Amino acid sequence: MVGRVNALGVHAYVWVERWSREDCRRAVWATAEAGFDLIEIPLLDPSSVDVDDTRQVLEEHGVQAACSLGLAAETDISSDDPAAVTAGRRLLDDALWATRQLGATMLTGVLYGRLGRYTEPLTTSGRTNAVATIRELCAAAAPEGITIGLEPVNRYETNGLNTAEQALRFIDDVGTDNLAVHLDTFHMNIEEADLASPVHACAERLGYVHLGESHRGALGTGTVDFPSFFAALAQAGYTGPITFESFSSAAAAPELSSTLCIWRESWTDAMAVARAATRFVHEQSAAAAARTG
Amino acid sequence: MVGRVNALGVHAYVWVERWSREDCRRAVWATAEAGFDLIEIPLLDPSSVDVDDTRQVLEEHGVQAACSLGLAAETDISSDDPAAVTAGRRLLDDALWATRQLGATMLTGVLYGRLGRYTEPLTTSGRTNAVATIRELCAAAAPEGITIGLEPVNRYETNGLNTAEQALRFIDDVGTDNLAVHLDTFHMNIEEADLASPVHACAERLGYVHLGESHRGALGTGTVDFPSFFAALAQAGYTGPITFESFSSAAAAPELSSTLCIWRESWTDAMAVARAATRFVHEQSAAAAARTG
Repeated sequence: MVGRVNALGVHAYVWVERWSREDCRRAVWATAEAGFDLIEIPLLDPSSVDVDDTRQVLEEHGVQAACSLGLAAETDISSDDPAAVTAGRRLLDDALWATRQLGATMLTGVLYGRLGRYTEPLTTSGRTNAVATIRELCAAAAPEGITIGLEPVNRYETNGLNTAEQALRFIDDVGTDNLAVHLDTFHMNIEEADLASPVHACAERLGYVHLGESHRGALGTGTVDFPSFFAALAQAGYTGPITFESFSSAAAAPELSSTLCIWRESWTDAMAVARAATRFVHEQSAAAAARTG
Repeated sequence: MVGRVNALGVHAYVWVERWSREDCRRAVWATAEAGFDLIEIPLLDPSSVDVDDTRQVLEEHGVQAACSLGLAAETDISSDDPAAVTAGRRLLDDALWATRQLGATMLTGVLYGRLGRYTEPLTTSGRTNAVATIRELCAAAAPEGITIGLEPVNRYETNGLNTAEQALRFIDDVGTDNLAVHLDTFHMNIEEADLASPVHACAERLGYVHLGESHRGALGTGTVDFPSFFAALAQAGYTGPITFESFSSAAAAPELSSTLCIWRESWTDAMAVARAATRFVHEQSAAAAARTG
């Protein structure tokens, strides 16, 4: 049953705006307290994370970690600018190092380009740069037992991978085994034909899941067709992490609100929205199991 | 029945990239040919539209017009910069003049601010500027029998009005009768709780409708819950225009792709996607009528 075999995760930004030693303690405690198995730790600036301290706090609370980031304009590996590609490769290496130090086995997100508004389509040479850089990253990650995830996001956040189909084609072009698709229901609701077929298209290449509501608020209060999504996960036998992601202007740092266009206060009580998310996942999983037998 | 009492419209960008005299002939002909009653003409640059010629072409084909635009950074009436507010007011006046010359009775869109990515939340003074400017525009439009529409759009395209509720509060603050909400299913799918409640919340203040699929491609090929939307329109007794809007990289001008982040080729045959849209509206309307009695 989905939800019993899967690690249930929560994005750190539900709890904290940054990742100081105090933020880390608060977030990891809250993750366990709300009933999650895993916390997704943003590595936008890997050097700012005290990895040894974080690893100790994770172990104290019996919480697993996954790591994620999105690249910036100056680290955009899908750029035609060699300096940006080089800087992006260096950032991804730093993130890979931090992922290993944290004892995590998944480094995912918008690793294939800039997380932000583009004003031009992706170029052929830019895509070639991204494929080559991700190939190098995967080669460095494989001996560490780390899987690299590619998260398709909506058109306003990338010109690269908007759909699972595009991510699968990218993975084919990279041609390594430790590269997986990371599906996010918020983005799927905008870019995909429905919430089930991308799960089936990915099949065993699905490696990570974000549960996000259509407006990025509490699960079950928007337009995302979660019953179809959970049924597809059950049918596909997905055993990877399922991570709750939500943003509210009440909790987001100004630079995050600016990057992700978080203008509304979806919620004010993080613990309440997180506990409701765990209940929601268990209900949806049970209903999907009952339907799919 | 919805679809029989409503004017069925199509956005000009389904047919053409710009609005030369030749574009006008091609688009108005195609609008009638595909079975639409109305064409939505963009007035991003009102002075570039040959209004007398366009009006004549519209009359020849028995096609009605609605007008729309979104403001730019330098004409952002929700800005704190008085120069931008003044320039925006001038652009809206020009658009109102063109709307009247075209014989249209609806000027709508993102008239309350810039259509584009913001990096900061809307300020209180910026909102006050927008309310005051829209009040002046409504006062100028009223004697002409023209209604002003406010289209809530998603978070990546405005920091102002993302939801019907916000639009209704804005209308309350403006305090005029010829100001209406313009709902767009593409944006509703991202920002609203569901596709029906905003229709009921607006009730008689709903003045214009865009039918857009979740990925802006062909209707019925994405995640938008159109059955709920059409049922709500029928229940609410909505009699205004219903306009099909779709974008494909095959048809969009580069600057439009850049503004709206159109990276994918959703379709290549505009006439086929437009005819399919008219069939879709008639089917959905009939089904809604059957359900609501």
